[in-house]
Amino acid sequence: MAQRHIIIVVIGSSTCPQEISQIAYEVGKGIAQKGGILICGGLGGVMEAASQGAKEAGGLTIGLLPGIEKKEANPYIDIPIVTGLSIARNAILVRSSDAIIAVSGGYGTLSEIAFALQLQIPVVELLSWKLGMPIIEANTALEAVEIAF
Amino acid sequence: MAQRHIIIVVIGSSTCPQEISQIAYEVGKGIAQKGGILICGGLGGVMEAASQGAKEAGGLTIGLLPGIEKKEANPYIDIPIVTGLSIARNAILVRSSDAIIAVSGGYGTLSEIAFALQLQIPVVELLSWKLGMPIIEANTALEAVEIAF
Amino acid sequence: MAQRHIIIVVIGSSTCPQEISQIAYEVGKGIAQKGGILICGGLGGVMEAASQGAKEAGGLTIGLLPGIEKKEANPYIDIPIVTGLSIARNAILVRSSDAIIAVSGGYGTLSEIAFALQLQIPVVELLSWKLGMPIIEANTALEAVEIAF
Amino acid sequence: MAQRHIIIVVIGSSTCPQEISQIAYEVGKGIAQKGGILICGGLGGVMEAASQGAKEAGGLTIGLLPGIEKKEANPYIDIPIVTGLSIARNAILVRSSDAIIAVSGGYGTLSEIAFALQLQIPVVELLSWKLGMPIIEANTALEAVEIAF
Repeated sequence: MAQRHIIIVVIGSSTCPQEISQIAYEVGKGIAQKGGILICGGLGGVMEAASQGAKEAGGLTIGLLPGIEKKEANPYIDIPIVTGLSIARNAILVRSSDAIIAVSGGYGTLSEIAFALQLQIPVVELLSWKLGMPIIEANTALEAVEIAF
Repeated sequence: MAQRHIIIVVIGSSTCPQEISQIAYEVGKGIAQKGGILICGGLGGVMEAASQGAKEAGGLTIGLLPGIEKKEANPYIDIPIVTGLSIARNAILVRSSDAIIAVSGGYGTLSEIAFALQLQIPVVELLSWKLGMPIIEANTALEAVEIAF
Repeated sequence: MAQRHIIIVVIGSSTCPQEISQIAYEVGKGIAQKGGILICGGLGGVMEAASQGAKEAGGLTIGLLPGIEKKEANPYIDIPIVTGLSIARNAILVRSSDAIIAVSGGYGTLSEIAFALQLQIPVVELLSWKLGMPIIEANTALEAVEIAF
Repeated sequence: MAQRHIIIVVIGSSTCPQEISQIAYEVGKGIAQKGGILICGGLGGVMEAASQGAKEAGGLTIGLLPGIEKKEANPYIDIPIVTGLSIARNAILVRSSDAIIAVSGGYGTLSEIAFALQLQIPVVELLSWKLGMPIIEANTALEAVEIAF
C-alpha cells in the first residue's frame, strides 16, 4: 500500500520581488521538512522559489504546468505534469491539495483561492488576497506551514 | 462567412433568491434584445433566469455544462455543451466571452471574475463581488447590458 | 422553453485534399438542410469545409477551439467556444454531440472516435478509420447525414 | 536542481482478467526497478496492478484521477492528482509521459494511444490495439519495459 503524504499546494505569481521569493522559498522548505509533498503550477516566481526550498530540504516537487511542454517547468520540479489546459489547470491544482498556501499573487491566484473556498479546502495566505474568513492569514512562512499541516 | 454576434457570458449562482432571479432574467432579456448571444454555465438560478429572459426575447442560449449529461441543462438552453470538466469549465466560459455580467454569485462566480481580470475581459457586476477597478459596477440590469455591449 | 435541435459533430483533419474538403462541405450542407446544428473543432480543413457547407445552407455553426484565441476560428464559425484546452477539447466535442460524422482524419480524429465509442455515441465514418462495428460506414456525404439523423 | 526521472505512463482498462492483471503488475515492477516513475489513471484493473507492482519494487506512483475525489485512487497510488476532468484527463496522462505502455485495454485506452501517436510519444503495446507502426508491439512485460526505457 502507498503511504499518502500530506500534499500542500503553493500558489502565487510567476514573477515576484525578491522578498516574496524569499518567503516562498521558506514555505517550500518548511513543507519538505514536515514530510509534505509540494505541488505547484511549476512555473517561475513564487512557484520556483517554493520548489527550490522544498528540493533543498530534500522534498518531492510536482508541477502542474499550464502549457504543452515539460521544459516549461522550473529547474526544481521533480515531476512535471503537462496539462496543456492553460488556466483551467488551476482547478486541478486546487482539487489535488490537502491545504493551500497562497504567497502574494495576482488574479490567477485569486481564481485558485476562489476554487479552494468553493471546494472547502483550507487556504492559508501570506501577503495575499484578503477575503476574510474562512481564509487564514499567516504572518510568517513558518506559521503558514504550521497552519497548513 | 459567419456573422459574429456579440457574446455575453452571464455568471452567478445555481440557486438564488427571487429578486436576484428577476435581475438575471432582465439581463438575459436585454442581451437578446440587443442581438447578443447568451452563454452561461447552463444550470439553475442566475443561469436559468438569464437563459429564460434571453429565450423569451427571441435570443440564442448556450450552456457550458460542468457535468457529463445534456439533461443537466436548464430548459432555456438551446445548445448544451457538455464539458465534463467540473469547475474547470469556468475557464472556458470566461475565455469565450466578449464581456461578462456577474449577477450576485458566490465563490464559483469569484473564480470566473478572477479569470476575466487575468485575461483582461471586461466584467460588469450587479450586486456581486466588489474587487474595485477594473470591474465596472452597474445598478440595474439594463445598465449592465448597456455597459457590456 | 428552448427547442433542442439535433447536434451533429463533424470531425476530421485541419488540412485535407480537395476531394475530402468537397465531401466535408456536403456533409455540413446536409446537416443544415435537415435543421441540425453543426459543432466542430473550429479550425481549417474538414472543419472549415463542413462549416462553410452548413453556413451556405443557412445553418448555425459552433467551433470548439483548442487554443486561446477567437481568431483561430475559421471564417464560417458563428460561435467560437475558446476552450484553451489543446487536445483535451476533443472530449468535449464528442460529449456534446447527438451523433458524429468522421470525414477522413488522422490520429486526432481517432482519439475522438475512441471517445465516442467509449461514450456510446453513434459514429458514422466516411473514408475514415475502419475499426469495425459499432462504427457505421457511409459511402456518400448524403448517406452519412441520413444515418447520423 | 531536481533530478528528472523517466516517467512511464501505463494505460489499460479499469477492470481486467487475472492474466492481464499479472502482466500489468510485472510492467509496474519493471518500471520501478529501472528507476522510472509510474503515472497512470489511478483507478482499478490494469492501473491498480501496475501501481501495486511499482510500489512493491519501491517505486513512486502517481494517479491522474478522472473524478473529483482522492479516495477514487487505488491503494497503491502515492500521489493522487484529482483532475475532475472525466475522460479529458486522458490527454494530460499522455502529455506527461516520456513513453507509454498499453496493456490490453478498451476504447479509453484507444483514445490515449491516438493522442500519443498525434503527439509523437512512443507507445509500446502488450495485447492491446494493433494499429501498426509506429506502435511497438512487445511480447512480455519485461520486453515492454525495456523498449519503453
